[in-house]
Amino acid sequence: MSELTESVAKTMKEFERLPGVGKKSAERIVYHLLKISKEEAFALSDSIRSMKENVRYCKCCFNLSEEELCDICRDPRRDQTTLCVVEQPRDLIALEKTGQYHGLYHVLLGRVSPLDGVGSEQLTIDSLVKRVKAGKFKEIIMATNPTVEGDGTALSITNRLEGTKIKITRLARGITTGSSLEFANNEMLADAISGRQRFDQEEREK
Amino acid sequence: MSELTESVAKTMKEFERLPGVGKKSAERIVYHLLKISKEEAFALSDSIRSMKENVRYCKCCFNLSEEELCDICRDPRRDQTTLCVVEQPRDLIALEKTGQYHGLYHVLLGRVSPLDGVGSEQLTIDSLVKRVKAGKFKEIIMATNPTVEGDGTALSITNRLEGTKIKITRLARGITTGSSLEFANNEMLADAISGRQRFDQEEREK
Repeated sequence: MSELTESVAKTMKEFERLPGVGKKSAERIVYHLLKISKEEAFALSDSIRSMKENVRYCKCCFNLSEEELCDICRDPRRDQTTLCVVEQPRDLIALEKTGQYHGLYHVLLGRVSPLDGVGSEQLTIDSLVKRVKAGKFKEIIMATNPTVEGDGTALSITNRLEGTKIKITRLARGITTGSSLEFANNEMLADAISGRQRFDQEEREK
Repeated sequence: MSELTESVAKTMKEFERLPGVGKKSAERIVYHLLKISKEEAFALSDSIRSMKENVRYCKCCFNLSEEELCDICRDPRRDQTTLCVVEQPRDLIALEKTGQYHGLYHVLLGRVSPLDGVGSEQLTIDSLVKRVKAGKFKEIIMATNPTVEGDGTALSITNRLEGTKIKITRLARGITTGSSLEFANNEMLADAISGRQRFDQEEREK
């Protein structure tokens, strides 16, 4: 005899598949869902379904979108000459939150990672190269993650873009605002020294 | 301009309402849902809906059930003379997993907790008292949590059952198997001493 009813057990299993949700958290979530009103639980269930039905990738930049083109690609006020390359839609969101960037984006939907079997053909690099060669971009900012794989991905894109006269930059690396030198690791400090900035440049990104 | 599409933002909000799911986890879950196939995402969404539609409380013991009476109440092989009172369905499941108990259950669906505004009238204590007075139970085991509120709930039930000749017991308290005396706290040791058991009694629950 099972101690859980079938549909409770099934829902727990489904929650356990989610990242960061273990057996205990799934149990806790399911008991919570059993306790709340039908309307509240259906709101969750319906939002998942409608999200999967409505959200797709932007045809141009592969950001998440409910239209063929995403909000950013459709916005004529964005600087059409600068392109920022990120790994995931969430990276784009993080950059947007700073309010410091007003150009366009290109989302790779991953990074080159041979160990995970992800090659550049699984990413949107081909579309990126096509887009750059067809467009009027003056600067491409590589905003992949500061990891071995992120750097590798940026490098392989840079190689693909060789021959174009576009300026290719990457995000500044160094110590983080609010941190303490004492606790910075060697790499961080090495980045900070080798990439040192002129004092009056601090306001260059107004 | 919003950086997230409307339905993505809505789904994140819904996940954030769940216990133990913060902003970051909700984001991570939603990005995962966007990545997996429609079928997998719909499986989660549908399981929530069907659980809320099918699962109710057992009419007799208030365990979770998809029928009017739960599996345990419907099972004639269970010992009909012993009743174990627990706070939540999950406590029942934990006890069932031990395989040591073969009687019936009564789920209170909470505990008396004046600070949270939960009085005994919000629990299933009235049904319990009615059930006990009408039934042929010989023993009631109080298996509320070993906390101030759990103990208080058990005590208030015991008071309500005064006058009946039924044996009322509670779960043994003491040191936990596999632990070390050195790290046991005072209360645990005091419980263990005051509730000390005869050596040959160890096999009483075969």
